[in-house]
Amino acid sequence: MTRSRTVFQTPWFSVEQVPSTEKASLDGPAYYRINSPDGIIILAMTADEKIILVRQFRPPLNQFTLEFPSGFMNEGETPQDAAVRELKEETGYVCQSMEFLSTGRIMMNRHNCLAYAFYGTGAVKVPDDRKEKDIDVVLCSAANFKKRVMSEEFIQFSAFAPIVLAAWKTGCRTILDA
Amino acid sequence: MTRSRTVFQTPWFSVEQVPSTEKASLDGPAYYRINSPDGIIILAMTADEKIILVRQFRPPLNQFTLEFPSGFMNEGETPQDAAVRELKEETGYVCQSMEFLSTGRIMMNRHNCLAYAFYGTGAVKVPDDRKEKDIDVVLCSAANFKKRVMSEEFIQFSAFAPIVLAAWKTGCRTILDA
Repeated sequence: MTRSRTVFQTPWFSVEQVPSTEKASLDGPAYYRINSPDGIIILAMTADEKIILVRQFRPPLNQFTLEFPSGFMNEGETPQDAAVRELKEETGYVCQSMEFLSTGRIMMNRHNCLAYAFYGTGAVKVPDDRKEKDIDVVLCSAANFKKRVMSEEFIQFSAFAPIVLAAWKTGCRTILDA
Repeated sequence: MTRSRTVFQTPWFSVEQVPSTEKASLDGPAYYRINSPDGIIILAMTADEKIILVRQFRPPLNQFTLEFPSGFMNEGETPQDAAVRELKEETGYVCQSMEFLSTGRIMMNRHNCLAYAFYGTGAVKVPDDRKEKDIDVVLCSAANFKKRVMSEEFIQFSAFAPIVLAAWKTGCRTILDA
């Protein structure tokens, strides 16, 4: 029995028509699942406890945003390797320790991709020629980060997951107690 | 100058092709934005400090999930009204107070919809014939919620936003300090 069919395709994601309930068939009401690669999101802190944020242009919003470093996993790449690679590519920083926190879901009413949350510490800037040039790095203290959240300058909801998970799993409450 | 074109459409969302940079034209590399209605997500607690979670079947994952109550805003509906309505429809609970915390973004590399986070307190169950029957309510203490997070039973990353925001904006640290 056919349980899905692809109805729209791009190089980055595809839209698949699936049954709307566990028992429904494809001939019942349509539901659209969006398939894309799994990704990683990183709470990265420098040795002097500055949080590493990235500012970049986001075409879907037609504006610049402030976010935690994140990205997609390449084919065959482990989440850990993707976290190290993405942080370096986006920010030019390398962490002394890059700790896996948890898998998660983002927008699970529509997407089936997984997100892997990481907590990187002791980040230092390394000379890197291959850093992505259209992404700016913003370093901020926990207090300054909190101010950006309170003023809605930082509104990336999924970024709050690694903040809480780092506190619960490693005891690092620098941000929560700011 | 045309700045976008719709390339795929469903009753729930549409995919729009947009320029890939702030200065690019539509003839440059394609970028695909997904448009859907804005939504709400609610950290709701009962009078005896139980967190209200919902368990439901999610077709994109082909499995049951545990999440904070959430949903889309109807046309013309305020975020506040949507939060009150969705909580009642999904759980049968009504809060004494439903406080707006912040707007946010979820998956802003692809989606342009906004999420409005709310913190509902003093929730009580009301007799309601119109509660959605395919959604189960799960009440849990802060300690039990933390256990579900640590075991990756609860992995909705955007739900951590209202948890932190409620702590920072209202001083409620029941969950963070669990």
